[in-house]
Amino acid sequence: MDLSVKNRIEYETVSLNEAEGAVEILDQTLLPGKVRMVRLRTAREIWEAIYQLRVRGAPAIGVAAAFGIYILARGIDTEDCRIFYEEFRKQKDYLNSARPTAVNLSWALDRMDAVYKKNTGCSVSEIKEKLRQEAVSIKEEDIRVCRKIGEYGLGLLKPGDGILTHCNAGYLAACRYGTATAPIYLGQERGYGFRVFADETRPLLQGARLTAYELSAAGVDVTLICDNMSATVMKKGWVNAVFVGCDRVAANGDTANKIGTSVVAAVAARYGIPFYVCAPTATIDMSMPSGESIPVEQRPAEEVTEMWYKERMAPEGIKVFNPAFDVTDNELVTGIITEYGIAEPPFRESLEEIFRIKKGL
Amino acid sequence: MDLSVKNRIEYETVSLNEAEGAVEILDQTLLPGKVRMVRLRTAREIWEAIYQLRVRGAPAIGVAAAFGIYILARGIDTEDCRIFYEEFRKQKDYLNSARPTAVNLSWALDRMDAVYKKNTGCSVSEIKEKLRQEAVSIKEEDIRVCRKIGEYGLGLLKPGDGILTHCNAGYLAACRYGTATAPIYLGQERGYGFRVFADETRPLLQGARLTAYELSAAGVDVTLICDNMSATVMKKGWVNAVFVGCDRVAANGDTANKIGTSVVAAVAARYGIPFYVCAPTATIDMSMPSGESIPVEQRPAEEVTEMWYKERMAPEGIKVFNPAFDVTDNELVTGIITEYGIAEPPFRESLEEIFRIKKGL
Repeated sequence: MDLSVKNRIEYETVSLNEAEGAVEILDQTLLPGKVRMVRLRTAREIWEAIYQLRVRGAPAIGVAAAFGIYILARGIDTEDCRIFYEEFRKQKDYLNSARPTAVNLSWALDRMDAVYKKNTGCSVSEIKEKLRQEAVSIKEEDIRVCRKIGEYGLGLLKPGDGILTHCNAGYLAACRYGTATAPIYLGQERGYGFRVFADETRPLLQGARLTAYELSAAGVDVTLICDNMSATVMKKGWVNAVFVGCDRVAANGDTANKIGTSVVAAVAARYGIPFYVCAPTATIDMSMPSGESIPVEQRPAEEVTEMWYKERMAPEGIKVFNPAFDVTDNELVTGIITEYGIAEPPFRESLEEIFRIKKGL
Repeated sequence: MDLSVKNRIEYETVSLNEAEGAVEILDQTLLPGKVRMVRLRTAREIWEAIYQLRVRGAPAIGVAAAFGIYILARGIDTEDCRIFYEEFRKQKDYLNSARPTAVNLSWALDRMDAVYKKNTGCSVSEIKEKLRQEAVSIKEEDIRVCRKIGEYGLGLLKPGDGILTHCNAGYLAACRYGTATAPIYLGQERGYGFRVFADETRPLLQGARLTAYELSAAGVDVTLICDNMSATVMKKGWVNAVFVGCDRVAANGDTANKIGTSVVAAVAARYGIPFYVCAPTATIDMSMPSGESIPVEQRPAEEVTEMWYKERMAPEGIKVFNPAFDVTDNELVTGIITEYGIAEPPFRESLEEIFRIKKGL
């Protein structure tokens, strides 16, 4: 079901509509032309919305999955805890199969799963209520986490700085502030006057459609460039720092993020420009020793050859390689900005320290 | 006027149609969907075809300009040499204003201009005939030059190598063989079995529309990637060398080429992959001490935000930076392959040596 939105700013990327029994998302595949909310009720609708990138961005995927599994759990018609949990697990595994790279999907679903395990004595309806609370917490934490990342990131910048970002790690990718955009939005509130360069981010154009859209709607000075123009703006001295989001950070700091991120990192390194990864700890996967073990999703050739276009833009039958993500070598990363502070190289040690702080050790 | 072409391979990128009083070009803005020849007769038509990239690629622009100024000269209705030359110069300056970066445009027009100066004693009709001969020579030389570049380039490769190329420096950009593709075509004739990666090359998609088209039509194993995937294919070890064309090489080896070339060069350097510029000496401008003085054409924002698309892909009114070219620092260039051999760093010396060989010194 579609809900039209009149005011382009007053909406939430992902929210829970308890009365309608739905996850409500802003359909990001239609931006910037159409601003439309969609209600997701069935497992298939939630899975499809994640797979088709109607909801995208690692944090937002996590929140959508948490609300989604809650809505599905709510609909399980039994009072028998064992039957309930069997069905819950089936739905969870199904949602988890939508996209492989962003760890937030499985992270959020595992948090929801743990609710059941922590409350084995409860009735099904009590568990359902606890699942609702957990999903709402995941979203609320996301907002707080993004704001903290913004504060730490802003400390690295000065008024008037030029910032380059790739893909969309904005409020559309999270629930407010975004991750890579959080320092930009906080700076905007405080009159920093940043100049932002947004890579258009082929093939799905998240930079052109989403980042340029949300930053300009917020009054930020943003210039759209093609991905292959990063070296030019850097060489001209227009960029003081790069801020990107991430889909999964390995224990050694290797960072999976939208395809092209590692190209930006290599070019930034050449021009001596610091390259920062904005990473909620939920996106840091200490079980992955390095980026080599991070699964990278391959997407259909049509995204490159015909999607968006009036007509096909490459010869019929051409071979296409279309990985959705790449892994940036940790040595190209200046710092990883988390809600508990900034990790610096060597990352194996500094990320462990971040998690010690998180655990209050 | 449009001429349909049935066989996709049997055409010339640029040719002179003496009987029709026209420059005949393959309209490259319509590829790969439509293969259509267009006849250019007026100064405006020739200028527009170059500006709109119906004919593009530094060598092909040079040939089109030479044929173009000949066709225009042929139409100057006077027997008075002074009146003839005045009009010739006016037309030449007009054509020369179509695009600023590729030096071949002014280089070819200057060669045509020199024909007049070398033949001041001749009648107007004798001069017209000499202009025709010069234009035909420019095209014939282009074919020989590309073949020589192919031979030198092939010497740097071994069977089975992976090659990455950016934009189109193929037969569509020259008159046969192309420049960056010349080693690939010669290798193909000799069973080298190269695997080629073609950057799609935003915003005008010359890689997707032209390079992928012409290489696959020739039976070459080609894979299309987005510009931001170069680091991924390089990191995987799939690329043994990068070959690109150029629009203008400065005396110190700094190389202006299609936007994004310097991004590829920076990434190749990071992964230790040699980066070769294929440059007919006509494209080397020894009057430019470095890349800083090369004029870089800025193109309209619409190329990034709406051209090709079913609907606009960025918010209305968004600022766009759209340079058509970038300059690759000479320190990122492994070698410059000319028809007289391969120049290696330091380029100031090696390029001078190339010109000494050219002059037979």
